[in-house]
Amino acid sequence: MSKEIGITVRKNEDFSEWYTQVVIKAQLTDYAPVKGLVVLRPYGYSIWEFLKSSIDQKLKATGHENGFLPVLIPESLLSKETAHFAGFTPEVFWVTHSGDTEIGDRLALRPTSETLAYSMYSKWIKSWRDLPLKINFWNSALRAEIKATKPFLRTSEFLWQEGHTVHSTKEEAEEEVMTILDIYRKTVEEELAIPVILGKKSEREKFVGAVYTTTMESIMPDGKALQMGTSHFLGQNFSKPFDVKFLDKQNIETFAWQTSWGVSWRLIGALIMVHGDDKGLVLPPRVAPIQAVIVPIYSSQSDKNVILEKADIIKEVLAKKGLRIHVDSRDEFTPGYKFHDWEMKGVPLRIEIGPKDLAKDKMVLVRRDTLKKFDTPFSNAEHDITQTLDAIQHDLFEKANKLLNERTKNVNNFDEFKKEIENGMFLYSPWCGDQKCEETIKESTSADIRVIPFDRKRSGAPCIVCRNPSKTDAIFARGY
Amino acid sequence: MSKEIGITVRKNEDFSEWYTQVVIKAQLTDYAPVKGLVVLRPYGYSIWEFLKSSIDQKLKATGHENGFLPVLIPESLLSKETAHFAGFTPEVFWVTHSGDTEIGDRLALRPTSETLAYSMYSKWIKSWRDLPLKINFWNSALRAEIKATKPFLRTSEFLWQEGHTVHSTKEEAEEEVMTILDIYRKTVEEELAIPVILGKKSEREKFVGAVYTTTMESIMPDGKALQMGTSHFLGQNFSKPFDVKFLDKQNIETFAWQTSWGVSWRLIGALIMVHGDDKGLVLPPRVAPIQAVIVPIYSSQSDKNVILEKADIIKEVLAKKGLRIHVDSRDEFTPGYKFHDWEMKGVPLRIEIGPKDLAKDKMVLVRRDTLKKFDTPFSNAEHDITQTLDAIQHDLFEKANKLLNERTKNVNNFDEFKKEIENGMFLYSPWCGDQKCEETIKESTSADIRVIPFDRKRSGAPCIVCRNPSKTDAIFARGY
Repeated sequence: MSKEIGITVRKNEDFSEWYTQVVIKAQLTDYAPVKGLVVLRPYGYSIWEFLKSSIDQKLKATGHENGFLPVLIPESLLSKETAHFAGFTPEVFWVTHSGDTEIGDRLALRPTSETLAYSMYSKWIKSWRDLPLKINFWNSALRAEIKATKPFLRTSEFLWQEGHTVHSTKEEAEEEVMTILDIYRKTVEEELAIPVILGKKSEREKFVGAVYTTTMESIMPDGKALQMGTSHFLGQNFSKPFDVKFLDKQNIETFAWQTSWGVSWRLIGALIMVHGDDKGLVLPPRVAPIQAVIVPIYSSQSDKNVILEKADIIKEVLAKKGLRIHVDSRDEFTPGYKFHDWEMKGVPLRIEIGPKDLAKDKMVLVRRDTLKKFDTPFSNAEHDITQTLDAIQHDLFEKANKLLNERTKNVNNFDEFKKEIENGMFLYSPWCGDQKCEETIKESTSADIRVIPFDRKRSGAPCIVCRNPSKTDAIFARGY
Repeated sequence: MSKEIGITVRKNEDFSEWYTQVVIKAQLTDYAPVKGLVVLRPYGYSIWEFLKSSIDQKLKATGHENGFLPVLIPESLLSKETAHFAGFTPEVFWVTHSGDTEIGDRLALRPTSETLAYSMYSKWIKSWRDLPLKINFWNSALRAEIKATKPFLRTSEFLWQEGHTVHSTKEEAEEEVMTILDIYRKTVEEELAIPVILGKKSEREKFVGAVYTTTMESIMPDGKALQMGTSHFLGQNFSKPFDVKFLDKQNIETFAWQTSWGVSWRLIGALIMVHGDDKGLVLPPRVAPIQAVIVPIYSSQSDKNVILEKADIIKEVLAKKGLRIHVDSRDEFTPGYKFHDWEMKGVPLRIEIGPKDLAKDKMVLVRRDTLKKFDTPFSNAEHDITQTLDAIQHDLFEKANKLLNERTKNVNNFDEFKKEIENGMFLYSPWCGDQKCEETIKESTSADIRVIPFDRKRSGAPCIVCRNPSKTDAIFARGY
């Protein structure tokens, strides 16, 4: 493989350039003709499909249903909840014309659908019998980005799901917030092999319009934090302006309690950053479009025929077990080229079969994560391949967990804080709860509160900034 | 059920009002706050999911992959293929601002994605090794409608899939056009139980930019034709302006051959119109979110307990066979109310279990399509329910096929044509191939050429308008 085709920079030398090369050269995505927009190529979309299906199944199992909302929201509706509106207007795309006709109440492209969903919900919900209402929407959101585009991390249109639920009690709504956060955690940890920290956002960082926001955060290898998903308790903040109310069992009209939540294709960005290496993408088997690729090695036509026949048999046996196997029978490329090609695309396992292997009734397995090679007799193919894929999934998580632990540090002293933040760390520090101290940290270090963890032991030390008694401990970091 | 909640008009007395009541009252859809836009409620979306999954599986089995394209297309790109652009501009939504900033090259909301897809394809395709490229996109299209909104049939945003393929030869591209049309036919006939006629569109009716358009047409009970899906042969009409070319095996640069094709949620509209009746929706079992609903009938708490226990057992047994069963255990409604509720929602089969049934180890099955009731012993539940659902699916198709045949007539005489078109018929008539005669028919009868069928015997009679020798026979009708 020529230098131009492979990844030309090292991950730890120029992380940003490395990332861009991986997403483009592994054919996950490409830049669209409009600044800030990207397309998803089939290889990238396929990863999204696995993620989507995993989340969708969990949502359905917990009583959620899917729906569809149009992308156009009238300005008058979007502006009904004022804090929410103010938070989004700077980045809204506005439709002003249809054909040659000017539109009176101009239309926003959905930055998020709370306002539209709840204007519908207020029509649908009349009594306690209509509750809970738990609808999810798989769509895209549009927010004009002025900063440089980073596929999966910062684009003006992104794929996501947004869920919007309505409950008759505060307790039930708050329980829903946590049910969803746990679905997100499970998906990310089990499918993407990325460990996360769960907790709340601070008042300053919460979703505009929410009572509070819960979040799932992780750290990337460049030391920056990535918000991986959020689940918001909206209280009655939207049900009041949008008139989402119901007659309870005593026939009393009551405003409903609401939640909203979402994850986006940003999760694919995290996957690339956390697991990728100098050769390109490294995919956890559970979301890999191809879990193992068989590369036949031959120099004569007769060898080719026998080896491809063997490869097809192995593929068929494994396909029956639900594994996704590809035989790379392309004649126009050398085995060496193919090795690099599939390494760049992050296929978890490579299976090599040459004439000598065939003679010994064996094949060679090569793990993408460790690049370790080992022989396996054909008779053990099913067992060894399944087990190796499981081991890769497990080891990728462990490696990422080690990174998270190494990069997380308890710090009670502001000087040490300032030093450690330069090293790209998650700093767990005591905080008085005052927004002023939060802003002091932001101004002097560019770090913000990523998450106030649910279940991490507090130090009890005074606020790291003002030295007044602390109310909580929070994880601070620079973020994406 | 009160009159207000049920359907208040007869299908054959006010078809349009009947349709609107069904889509709203069966909770398939609702009107969004912007004129011309609708939302899809979970019950409606669920039908879309079954359709989507059926098509998606068939596309993947024939080597297609999914991708994502942004909704925004710059005007400069959209206008590159001039005939195509002229066809769509009157109905394009234009984005002119992001936040407070005016956008230089204004952005169209995707009316269809040929232009955007092919500008990407021209970057991705270099050699014959990159072909065929067969990508499908599940998204929505936006076309500003000025006529009155009809959910599923005429809205300014609609869910669909659009496929875009690239081939190295004309023959392979033309074969793809037919592969897709056949996937559409199979889906509509087997899942939706609606028979269709396949053929070509006339030059006047083809997709703007295509060499030719193949189509799948059917007739609705009001006598209007509905285009159910189209598959276009684009030739090199787009590959030339968009520079989609490749080096062939002889290293010669060649413009590629292309196809595009799509079906939309309009198929759900067809389903409603073809199978629905005065009581509401009638769903073919294969796309019914709930295939059978169990309604327990009791007057005492002890009866209730035993019956619900029995209902749950039956549900579990059938769920294991992959059937979608719902037990309606709502206490706040009478059995009579529930019967009407599920009838309106078109659930194919109702299962009633009361104390007398329980005493005789049996239950009552009620078919939604015929409303016929019959007893089934519990011991036969699995067999009888499965078989009845199959029978419903089969009978719905036969009934629709009968309608199609009754409404299709060979007519060689223009006076008879004018009379029969008033009766809401598909008229199969000889045509000289001249656009003038096509326009004469359109002007004098409002009918147009729906489809020039692939395999229907020609009459050989002279053109129905000009009496010159006919080149072909075409099906004329008034359309949606």
